[in-house]
Amino acid sequence: MSDKILIVGAGAIGGFYGSLLARAGQQVSMVVRSDYDVVNANGIHIESTLGNWNFKPQHAVKNAADYPERADFVVLCTKVTNEIDRVELIRAVVKPETVIVLIQNGIGIEKEIAQAFPDNILISGLAFICVTRIKPGYVQHTAYGRLVFGDYPQGVSDKTTAFAAMFDESGINAVTTDNVVTARWQKTVWNAPFNPISVLSSGLDTQTVLTTQEPYLRAIMSEVAEIAKAVGHPLRDDIVDLNVDSTRTMPPYKTSMLLDFEHGRTMETEAILGNAVREAELAGVATPYLSSLYALMKLREIQIEKVRLFSN
Amino acid sequence: MSDKILIVGAGAIGGFYGSLLARAGQQVSMVVRSDYDVVNANGIHIESTLGNWNFKPQHAVKNAADYPERADFVVLCTKVTNEIDRVELIRAVVKPETVIVLIQNGIGIEKEIAQAFPDNILISGLAFICVTRIKPGYVQHTAYGRLVFGDYPQGVSDKTTAFAAMFDESGINAVTTDNVVTARWQKTVWNAPFNPISVLSSGLDTQTVLTTQEPYLRAIMSEVAEIAKAVGHPLRDDIVDLNVDSTRTMPPYKTSMLLDFEHGRTMETEAILGNAVREAELAGVATPYLSSLYALMKLREIQIEKVRLFSN
Repeated sequence: MSDKILIVGAGAIGGFYGSLLARAGQQVSMVVRSDYDVVNANGIHIESTLGNWNFKPQHAVKNAADYPERADFVVLCTKVTNEIDRVELIRAVVKPETVIVLIQNGIGIEKEIAQAFPDNILISGLAFICVTRIKPGYVQHTAYGRLVFGDYPQGVSDKTTAFAAMFDESGINAVTTDNVVTARWQKTVWNAPFNPISVLSSGLDTQTVLTTQEPYLRAIMSEVAEIAKAVGHPLRDDIVDLNVDSTRTMPPYKTSMLLDFEHGRTMETEAILGNAVREAELAGVATPYLSSLYALMKLREIQIEKVRLFSN
Repeated sequence: MSDKILIVGAGAIGGFYGSLLARAGQQVSMVVRSDYDVVNANGIHIESTLGNWNFKPQHAVKNAADYPERADFVVLCTKVTNEIDRVELIRAVVKPETVIVLIQNGIGIEKEIAQAFPDNILISGLAFICVTRIKPGYVQHTAYGRLVFGDYPQGVSDKTTAFAAMFDESGINAVTTDNVVTARWQKTVWNAPFNPISVLSSGLDTQTVLTTQEPYLRAIMSEVAEIAKAVGHPLRDDIVDLNVDSTRTMPPYKTSMLLDFEHGRTMETEAILGNAVREAELAGVATPYLSSLYALMKLREIQIEKVRLFSN
């Protein structure tokens, strides 16, 4: 029996994973804002290492309120920035039985949703993937794809197991974890250095950064591990080595922050760096390396905003 | 009685201060590399808060070896980067009686010159000035101008007193100090944050940086003060407050590193940041804020170099 799934956000993440769920036989609809005309007419074309296919949502709607069904799962796939009010985006479709799923980056990004919908199951999800929305209705998937899901704040409910299982034959590995918050810190060990550095260096790829500034990268990663430990989510002892080693074997690629930067879009500075630094402050952990990146990214954003205003 | 002065480097600093010495009646010549044709034909036009005037060097030469006189003072006004071999630039004109003067930025930049010319008096100088070479043979002076001179490694010789006195009626304040190395650290308290941040933020002015990231600036400045203390050059206790307060009343202006960056020229990353970080390491002082700036500037340079190669 298929479930009714409403994907909110027709970017690369929403388009790609939504299409996999549709291929798995679920009834997948989408809330599409800027790309509505294209997606409503033609769906989303997926060009992937798994093949090429077209994904036509059951319903494409401009606002969640226009969705004519009752969703079993509402899946938030937007970026996490101050410009996007995630609670308002989904309020109209969250019924008592609705499971809310997040496939989003950042630290502490569940709290706001959990507070707004305290009685719903909230599945927090992380995507390890290189995927880009090339143009409206066109998503290119170039590497990886693994998903990690867990209930927020912890545990794995039957709904979470069932949701992860929908990807079973998709070619993408989806697993569950008892402690998804720990998993978020773990992902941030990589994101916190590489995302901002890719922007601050004006576009250097991961390999160049790693070969020339490994001690600096390790210092940043170690700070993330220290915060995680201080807030009750200790990571494995060799987490920094692991991240350095795995980066060595990654193809050089553009981070999501760099892609946002190059397209003049708002970056997830607050979700990834700001929230980590604030948790560190609360826990009394000194984070000079992270705080430096955070300060410099905020300055970069001011400059981007100036250019944007100027070009309007 | 006038002295024979050879200015090496016809950038903004060399052009401006050289012209003041000429106005004071000294016999001022210049080693001019890229701007030779213009400077040799027309001299250097100075547009200054002190007035406008033209400066015609006694001799303009492409290499120090072509200078037909014996210099009383050889004044190095180039940038301090790995691309410029300062010792070779002046070797041909350094005679036993020649006084060598540096008007250059950075930490520890005297050592190389002192080692190459151990028997000459070496005057180390700092310029606090907003001055720009707008085009070949044209220098614009927009604010400040104070000079600080001292013998390296310490003390004030008669030659230093005499050299500073040449500026007495120039409209520019030139003072001497017993400990010029301390003065360098003091200047670096401001340069170490504002120069790299202006580049990493892609051109934000000092005022915007100060109003939005004051705690970050203070953290960087404090590290410089800590290194200075550890290497035997303690600064006054309120040095950070002083720098923050004086920046508040400065007109927003472009740092020298930002100007270099915008014109695709090599930046003084090593002289200002690299040398400070290396002295900190030797002294066992942790400098995560400075090290972050240094690492990010090195990455920025790699990217600049890539673009430069690409555009050739």
